[in-house]
Amino acid sequence: MSLVRPSVQRASTPALDLRPIASTIGILLSILGASMLLPAMADLRAGSGGQGAFVGAAAITIFVGVLLIVSGRGTTPARLDLRQAFLLTASVWVVLALFATLPLMWGPSHLSFVHALFEAVSGLTTTGSTVMTGLDAMSPGILLWRAMLHWFGGVGIVVIAIAVLPALSIGGMQLFRTESSDRSEKFMPRAGSVAKGLLTAYLLLSLLCTICYLLAGMTPFDAVTLAMSTVSSGGFANSDSSFGIFTSPAVEYVAVVFMLAASLPFPLYVRALGGDVSKLFRNAEVRLFLAVVAAFTLASFLQQSFQGVAHGETALRQALFTVASLVSSTGFMAVDYTHWGPLSDAIFFVLMFLGGCTGSTAGGLKTLRLLIAMKAVRQHLKRISYRNGVFPIRYGGASVSDEVVASVLGFIFLYVATFAVAGVILSLMGLDLRTAFSASIASLSNVGPGLGPIVGPATTYANLPDPAVALLTFVMLLGRLEILTVLVLTLPRFWMR
Amino acid sequence: MSLVRPSVQRASTPALDLRPIASTIGILLSILGASMLLPAMADLRAGSGGQGAFVGAAAITIFVGVLLIVSGRGTTPARLDLRQAFLLTASVWVVLALFATLPLMWGPSHLSFVHALFEAVSGLTTTGSTVMTGLDAMSPGILLWRAMLHWFGGVGIVVIAIAVLPALSIGGMQLFRTESSDRSEKFMPRAGSVAKGLLTAYLLLSLLCTICYLLAGMTPFDAVTLAMSTVSSGGFANSDSSFGIFTSPAVEYVAVVFMLAASLPFPLYVRALGGDVSKLFRNAEVRLFLAVVAAFTLASFLQQSFQGVAHGETALRQALFTVASLVSSTGFMAVDYTHWGPLSDAIFFVLMFLGGCTGSTAGGLKTLRLLIAMKAVRQHLKRISYRNGVFPIRYGGASVSDEVVASVLGFIFLYVATFAVAGVILSLMGLDLRTAFSASIASLSNVGPGLGPIVGPATTYANLPDPAVALLTFVMLLGRLEILTVLVLTLPRFWMR
Repeated sequence: MSLVRPSVQRASTPALDLRPIASTIGILLSILGASMLLPAMADLRAGSGGQGAFVGAAAITIFVGVLLIVSGRGTTPARLDLRQAFLLTASVWVVLALFATLPLMWGPSHLSFVHALFEAVSGLTTTGSTVMTGLDAMSPGILLWRAMLHWFGGVGIVVIAIAVLPALSIGGMQLFRTESSDRSEKFMPRAGSVAKGLLTAYLLLSLLCTICYLLAGMTPFDAVTLAMSTVSSGGFANSDSSFGIFTSPAVEYVAVVFMLAASLPFPLYVRALGGDVSKLFRNAEVRLFLAVVAAFTLASFLQQSFQGVAHGETALRQALFTVASLVSSTGFMAVDYTHWGPLSDAIFFVLMFLGGCTGSTAGGLKTLRLLIAMKAVRQHLKRISYRNGVFPIRYGGASVSDEVVASVLGFIFLYVATFAVAGVILSLMGLDLRTAFSASIASLSNVGPGLGPIVGPATTYANLPDPAVALLTFVMLLGRLEILTVLVLTLPRFWMR
Repeated sequence: MSLVRPSVQRASTPALDLRPIASTIGILLSILGASMLLPAMADLRAGSGGQGAFVGAAAITIFVGVLLIVSGRGTTPARLDLRQAFLLTASVWVVLALFATLPLMWGPSHLSFVHALFEAVSGLTTTGSTVMTGLDAMSPGILLWRAMLHWFGGVGIVVIAIAVLPALSIGGMQLFRTESSDRSEKFMPRAGSVAKGLLTAYLLLSLLCTICYLLAGMTPFDAVTLAMSTVSSGGFANSDSSFGIFTSPAVEYVAVVFMLAASLPFPLYVRALGGDVSKLFRNAEVRLFLAVVAAFTLASFLQQSFQGVAHGETALRQALFTVASLVSSTGFMAVDYTHWGPLSDAIFFVLMFLGGCTGSTAGGLKTLRLLIAMKAVRQHLKRISYRNGVFPIRYGGASVSDEVVASVLGFIFLYVATFAVAGVILSLMGLDLRTAFSASIASLSNVGPGLGPIVGPATTYANLPDPAVALLTFVMLLGRLEILTVLVLTLPRFWMR
């Protein structure tokens, strides 16, 4: 995992050396290509005839991967400068997604390029929006491949969130650097061991989730693929009706537990593995996150009870599942919550904006940013009412500077602005308010299904015109890369220096 | 105008002296009461029989006003401390609105208290939402009274925006203090002369607007009342179909010019009166505001043309009128733009959020805050991509501190959060997504009509249940007082010190 060590040094040479980027992407492409042999085997065993597409795609992907590794020789990829780190972080998703489309176009799913790219990006960004129908009869190879894209994407985003974004100071995430590195300035030298700890936690969580799904009565294939889809906060399912095909409440409760678990900060799991379990629930971000979940579950429970949709345990379970699925940006659906009355639309938007904790696989604004924003409003109130006091914002035992607060709030502004601009463009394409803006936030926050008859949970994004599909593909990438990583590449000075 | 001089000193005594607040409110109540005799005369002259309600209300209002003046004797209202300034700013709107309801309840409009309070607050906050139908046959007294509430509210908000909010450092508005006081620290001693200049500009603008409306063919009564409604960015009209009753394009163009004029910073008018006209169009906020207006007018024009709604001059005029009405937070309607297709919903929300310039009668986030937020995002991008540089944000020739940037961005967060919370509560009351959230932003930004069949421009807020009407009354006040002025009063320490 050499990509996790951008040591962030100033560029000493004016030219941008692409070789370390090429070699890192080459390594990852080779892994992706080799992994295509797993769905090939699944299809071969099931006799569904999809193996040819996977083997062909694997050959091409590995070939290009090796070519890139060779072309990048002669550099030490462990030492990236700032520009290289930005360029790598943004381009790796695009390149991997491009090659991930091959089996989706050539295999039994027969997607067009625009649709295949949407599906691959939705997989890697762990969004879980789909343009595919007929999933219940789909070949196991394709279903496994979609789940694997989620799982790889989940690893990727946790590693990037912990090891790369803080070093790049994206949207106030230097805060998180402090938090996850015990307030030492030397984070980067420890990135290797941190990544190892994160991978261990991610693997253990996936394994545990698979076992629980099996115990709850799933088939082994469903258990493995849906566990991949759950711990990555993805949302791809093996049925057009998502979790609606399972009649067992146990399955839903398992999904709730692991969707929420996937939304907690992974560094805290690494610590818990080291024996420090108490930190997990003493963390201010985790507490606020759980409070949000509890409040919205209660609201949704009451709404169902008053509207007569469901009562007792059923209402509670449906509320928990829906809230966990939305706030974790997974997007599984057990029941069509959009028919519960107007409040569900409002809950939907608020939960989608919020998202999970930093350093998790979840999308959205992140609970830490909400926490800082709330503290900033409180600080502002105090500052204007008692002129001569000093009111520092504290997080994780340290005081947060005005610069970091401005970064966090600036990020929130940028997030809302991106949501609005994408919604306006989708409206320009003729979509109604609810469809356009729910698709915008569901993609930006990497949740998946939107609202209404066109992009709602009962249908797929295949109903949209191709330009809208392409736009949402880009919005998913923007959301996953915290917008700024992409915007930085648009600065002329980024390329001219 | 003694209320404009809160000299913002530290409280030397722990007790909160309410006398200067009482005497200031008393003076304003007496003025309000005396002004009720104007609609009484209008009703007397028209023989519509509404004069009794106005005379009775005037008597009570003046009586209470004088009582308050007497009870507040023995203090110098010109020297308010910080707490007194906050309390006065927030309470003056509530008290004036309470007394303004009297003629609305007792007169020919026969409103309930909840509806009358909504109408009065909508008037004073220059929102222009109404719960009244049958305006075309309404007595002139009531129509004049509604217009006068707008006009008084417009004066009030400009004076507060220029002289009070900056001194209270609300939401980064200390920026504006610098701007309007030539970067001198001694703003407050000049507040009296500034207020005089603002009043002159406001009066001249009202007079000019009346004359133009007359020239465009309005009756004198319409010209006077609608001019009051226009320069205050209010929105109350004399017909259920708002500007739909005028068939003359000239009337609409006059309205466009003065709605936009009312959205520009009034301090620049004061300077222009002093001969410095060039400043008006060299101001960065004004330029951004005009760019927003031009961009959205073009989009709306193209939309109408492509959808076949209208063409040529008609499409351009309808686009201009609608954009100017929404962005200035006036809320006049010449044509029902909500039937132009999905884009108009999106344009509606974006324009309502943005609003006009600081120091104008317009509501919304204000263009200056958008400008600072955009600069902050650019600064953040530069900071993360070139570590060792210093990238100050500049406005009005000076560098803006991280603290001020954080205040501005924190205000934007608070604004969006208030919009979301009010929308969720309205959803809880059973309103659909479009109705709940459009009513929320239309009230918070002091625009007026929302979207859809319940609160849209073709109807009134009387369709809503009373709790929703009461909530929106509070939201209008929150928006007009820039939220923080109200929130400060909820801090326990505000009262305990």
